[in-house]
Amino acid sequence: MSSTFGHVFRIHTFGESHGGGVGVVIDGCPPRIPVSVEQIQHELDRRRPGQSEIVTPRKEADTAEILSGLQDGVTLGCPIAILVRNTDQRPGAYDEMAQKYRPSHADFTYDAKYGIRSGSGGGRASARETIGRVAAAAVARQVLDTLHPGIEILAWVKSIQDINAEVDPEKVDAQTIESNMVRTGDPAMVETMIERIKAIRADGNSVGGVIECVIRNCPPGLGEPIFDKLEADLAKAMLSLPATKGFEIGSGFAGTLLTGIEHNDAFRMVDGKVRTVTNRSGGIQGGISNGETIVFRVAFKPTATIMSKQDTVTTTGENTELQGRGRHDACVLPRAVPIVEAMATLVLTDHLLRQASNR
Amino acid sequence: MSSTFGHVFRIHTFGESHGGGVGVVIDGCPPRIPVSVEQIQHELDRRRPGQSEIVTPRKEADTAEILSGLQDGVTLGCPIAILVRNTDQRPGAYDEMAQKYRPSHADFTYDAKYGIRSGSGGGRASARETIGRVAAAAVARQVLDTLHPGIEILAWVKSIQDINAEVDPEKVDAQTIESNMVRTGDPAMVETMIERIKAIRADGNSVGGVIECVIRNCPPGLGEPIFDKLEADLAKAMLSLPATKGFEIGSGFAGTLLTGIEHNDAFRMVDGKVRTVTNRSGGIQGGISNGETIVFRVAFKPTATIMSKQDTVTTTGENTELQGRGRHDACVLPRAVPIVEAMATLVLTDHLLRQASNR
Amino acid sequence: MSSTFGHVFRIHTFGESHGGGVGVVIDGCPPRIPVSVEQIQHELDRRRPGQSEIVTPRKEADTAEILSGLQDGVTLGCPIAILVRNTDQRPGAYDEMAQKYRPSHADFTYDAKYGIRSGSGGGRASARETIGRVAAAAVARQVLDTLHPGIEILAWVKSIQDINAEVDPEKVDAQTIESNMVRTGDPAMVETMIERIKAIRADGNSVGGVIECVIRNCPPGLGEPIFDKLEADLAKAMLSLPATKGFEIGSGFAGTLLTGIEHNDAFRMVDGKVRTVTNRSGGIQGGISNGETIVFRVAFKPTATIMSKQDTVTTTGENTELQGRGRHDACVLPRAVPIVEAMATLVLTDHLLRQASNR
Amino acid sequence: MSSTFGHVFRIHTFGESHGGGVGVVIDGCPPRIPVSVEQIQHELDRRRPGQSEIVTPRKEADTAEILSGLQDGVTLGCPIAILVRNTDQRPGAYDEMAQKYRPSHADFTYDAKYGIRSGSGGGRASARETIGRVAAAAVARQVLDTLHPGIEILAWVKSIQDINAEVDPEKVDAQTIESNMVRTGDPAMVETMIERIKAIRADGNSVGGVIECVIRNCPPGLGEPIFDKLEADLAKAMLSLPATKGFEIGSGFAGTLLTGIEHNDAFRMVDGKVRTVTNRSGGIQGGISNGETIVFRVAFKPTATIMSKQDTVTTTGENTELQGRGRHDACVLPRAVPIVEAMATLVLTDHLLRQASNR
Repeated sequence: MSSTFGHVFRIHTFGESHGGGVGVVIDGCPPRIPVSVEQIQHELDRRRPGQSEIVTPRKEADTAEILSGLQDGVTLGCPIAILVRNTDQRPGAYDEMAQKYRPSHADFTYDAKYGIRSGSGGGRASARETIGRVAAAAVARQVLDTLHPGIEILAWVKSIQDINAEVDPEKVDAQTIESNMVRTGDPAMVETMIERIKAIRADGNSVGGVIECVIRNCPPGLGEPIFDKLEADLAKAMLSLPATKGFEIGSGFAGTLLTGIEHNDAFRMVDGKVRTVTNRSGGIQGGISNGETIVFRVAFKPTATIMSKQDTVTTTGENTELQGRGRHDACVLPRAVPIVEAMATLVLTDHLLRQASNR
Repeated sequence: MSSTFGHVFRIHTFGESHGGGVGVVIDGCPPRIPVSVEQIQHELDRRRPGQSEIVTPRKEADTAEILSGLQDGVTLGCPIAILVRNTDQRPGAYDEMAQKYRPSHADFTYDAKYGIRSGSGGGRASARETIGRVAAAAVARQVLDTLHPGIEILAWVKSIQDINAEVDPEKVDAQTIESNMVRTGDPAMVETMIERIKAIRADGNSVGGVIECVIRNCPPGLGEPIFDKLEADLAKAMLSLPATKGFEIGSGFAGTLLTGIEHNDAFRMVDGKVRTVTNRSGGIQGGISNGETIVFRVAFKPTATIMSKQDTVTTTGENTELQGRGRHDACVLPRAVPIVEAMATLVLTDHLLRQASNR
Repeated sequence: MSSTFGHVFRIHTFGESHGGGVGVVIDGCPPRIPVSVEQIQHELDRRRPGQSEIVTPRKEADTAEILSGLQDGVTLGCPIAILVRNTDQRPGAYDEMAQKYRPSHADFTYDAKYGIRSGSGGGRASARETIGRVAAAAVARQVLDTLHPGIEILAWVKSIQDINAEVDPEKVDAQTIESNMVRTGDPAMVETMIERIKAIRADGNSVGGVIECVIRNCPPGLGEPIFDKLEADLAKAMLSLPATKGFEIGSGFAGTLLTGIEHNDAFRMVDGKVRTVTNRSGGIQGGISNGETIVFRVAFKPTATIMSKQDTVTTTGENTELQGRGRHDACVLPRAVPIVEAMATLVLTDHLLRQASNR
Repeated sequence: MSSTFGHVFRIHTFGESHGGGVGVVIDGCPPRIPVSVEQIQHELDRRRPGQSEIVTPRKEADTAEILSGLQDGVTLGCPIAILVRNTDQRPGAYDEMAQKYRPSHADFTYDAKYGIRSGSGGGRASARETIGRVAAAAVARQVLDTLHPGIEILAWVKSIQDINAEVDPEKVDAQTIESNMVRTGDPAMVETMIERIKAIRADGNSVGGVIECVIRNCPPGLGEPIFDKLEADLAKAMLSLPATKGFEIGSGFAGTLLTGIEHNDAFRMVDGKVRTVTNRSGGIQGGISNGETIVFRVAFKPTATIMSKQDTVTTTGENTELQGRGRHDACVLPRAVPIVEAMATLVLTDHLLRQASNR
């Protein structure tokens, strides 16, 4: 298993959905950075189950304990270990699942790979693993605030199934997004989206969508070609999240319909800076940030756990049926918004620190 | 700069478009693998300029020299260094470009990052860098043939601008794809695509599209969650290629329009094996291959180099215009097909070798 | 900071001497390995303060809590997080040390590097950090027992200052070593060594020595030339331990006095195996184990913390004196024996798993 | 195989003693560093065979070709590939060795590990592999000269067998060392050492010794605890060299005879700087440089290749004898001096660049 992400700002996550707890060790965090534990907790609360009526009612306090690396609220340059205890465990709820592979879950593939599998719930494949990422990113965010203030990283729900939000990536703000429980950037679509999620849940069904994310005020020069291009690391970061099926940056797949004359971003001098007139590149050229807003989108499939009867097989190789049970999200996107921001923050912080050795 | 890819089967590429040459050092290749130099050369020829009337007429023999690691056609377990000399250099052709940033190229960002830039052509950002990847993948392909024969990795042009090919990922074969110079898997679309590319080139314009790729007969169990999920590594591999703007696996972005009931892949026993009835997962679940065909798509933007006049700025910060010149591809997709296959081959070989320590 | 060790069997340690706790996250541990928590605790007890009358009387229970990665006593292939809480903290005891650099400690260099330093005790430079290593190695030991039973890793005190133990590396056993509190392999020297340590401590002074270690029944073929030669990784592992000043393998420094004719290890067939008649190579040739017993020695300087008055400077740059206080070891070697074994175990387990991809 | 060294300034060596050539790819070299190819060639000439009457008469021009990464004598921030062709090959000279394992060479262990072995000469285990390291270090040296001028890295022969040189690590200079073919720092011992080497060679025998190395004017703060302590990385670097059997820093093994009161390095303010009165720490405390001179020693065993008859076994498992032939060094130390400097330079450059992200 490979639970490490990043080169200079490196995180190591650990923990299963059921067991002592989940968490993260951050290594390579610069010294002398003020870190607020409240800000870490705030981000954990944004991804927490039970935060609104359209997410899973599972109750977990998800309280972060800092085990090391901080002294009087300042980083020492030593590993920062953060632990979140598991509390609301119902092992019995997963008895059937231990015997049957849930369709489009990781049950079968973990067995195929490891020859063993966490007996209850998703184990390591649970979305609960992302707690470590979110906690680490909350630290990374404070590194950015200290070393390079002004960088904004903001994600929102761009679409739920076929319901599209109209959002201006240059202007949308956190307040607008956080003011609605679906975390979209388009106030006009909030109710429609909420209704869709409630209706789908009432049917024992689930639904997916697209999250859009921007990095604004990113300095030019970040990204390490050839293989650690900034967009390549963002793509990997996003596809490492549960339930993601696609990533596109700037013009993305739609850009393949344009010609080069239409697609190219002309350069112009603006206020003494090299700027582009359009931003189909999405803020990155040749794997390196160009100072424009970085814009990308991530596709999330409909949640695999549904409260309907499905065909599947047993772990001993017999055809059977499975009736979903438990407390799950009918739509993961509202809770995935802070997680997308978290991964983008981790990528950016790592590349900002990597760039230090190029000067 | 980060020119290393892979964990066990690791490649290190080097070289600029203009200079002594480009190449690769492969480290971690298992010993006792028969490697045919002809097969390496064959793959280099598939990506070579000048191979057909719809690609750049630049003439480069691209002849591979194996410097180390092989003895009597068999790997020693030592680093395999492969060198391809640069030959067809026309430094004068790039004089204007040295003074002006080409729109949607990496000229400006390399300057922003490194404070210096290859004076002629794309330097390290040139597509010529992919020679090292293709050569390394040709070795990897032979590792797969020896250690796990039967794995098929096949890519084709799925679309050129708005021209879509109809291709069955389970059935399309190499012969069909290689039989046409555009490398699409749909014979019915070959002429339309070629005409589009020729017309676009005649206009001094360029065009992009989508490449689709499959990995067939992939054993279940490959991929290293959490961060090195198989689709995450594929996404990174593809987004590390020049001109790519998006990646999607299985149902991809279109899958966000489905509900969970529609999207889930039911399991059934078939011939004593656990199989899925549908394959919206695209052959990977929880970051681990499930034995079904892996299917993904990559978006390529229209080539940035166009033979038309464009607004841009000089390296000293003045607005100006640039008139494109030189010998470039109006559409990179036909030559990108073997490169997409190469990156998929590198990812798969690395994960096959990584899995060895899980047993 | 770089708190990661190993390539396939990777450990990430965390924690300062004073704070929430210390511990380790193990990633890359193979699945389906039975792991006894008692065995982990047993090894922690071997390095624990207060275990005998010749080590520091500091009282720490050092109880290991397994946070993740195990299910019913078997590894899942997921990260194994182990936490040991800090309990016996006396922050007041270190007030003077916060203002003065302790000679031959890491106080000054941590300040020079990070511009900040743990205000009490050694922080991350404390020997307490080795708890994570010992816990991880206790897991590694059980991986070896499962995948390659019969490998013996055994260390002992070879010398205390000028008192030398006579020990046969091929024959000495754990029982002999563990039967005396100084952990030497020579029963005849036990009392002399204990008396020396007690006398030195009574003087407010300290003393060092040499630890010798063997790896017996190591299979041939482990070690990854060029840079990850088995002896190179052992040397790094040992020099990463606090208070170490030297490493030698096989004939070591004394071997430089011999000629090639005297030094070379002739090969002979024994019981159908290729064996060497002598073992001046110390079990490794060209960076790869040859199947003979691996023998190496590690030099430990006298403990830097002494209960005498010493010249030093303040953190604000004034000459001053420091009178040592606190509860420290006058000789670290008895407690370092299990730590040397731990590092050797980690190196060997990692190389055993790395070798899997060469087959 | 693992042919990569370094984290930020990373080198990848390649090549066998017999084949197309040997070389190195340097990745992570900062941009805009002036690099003189003559300086690279100068260092290669220092390690070259045939340079004096006490080293092997094998004739190899060892001419470096820079394939990439430089433009007009300045680094681009891109990988720098350097190739040295093999020229003086005598495959026939090794026929017997292909059938018999040379004692204390890597022939048997390479076979044990890889199941295959270079048929002629040492293959990858040949000292010829160090060409790539020396070439890379010559580039690193120029990085240091630009980013942190004044750092001196100097090695010399401290002993040949039992002949010891008296050298003051703070004062010895390059001119003294380079003025004699044995490369010792003590003019009084030059003739004695040369005579010993010649006498030993005349006997068909070989001899080893100790090389001492200093890093002077090293800034405080370099080294990455816990595992990448500066002395740990130096130890690994040195033990990764062929024929090395030991490493010690500062007081080393002899320091184990002192008490803590004798051994501790008192701090004093000198010219406004924190300095130590003595330097038994060898310039490193807690894994981090303290600004004092770094001093370490490396033990080299007598050359394994001797021109005498030895017992050995065949590759098919029969006892036999081997009569050494070929052109080898009776003492590797004079040629190893620049190689020890090279490895120290690589370690220091990497740590200087790693430290950039701690600020």
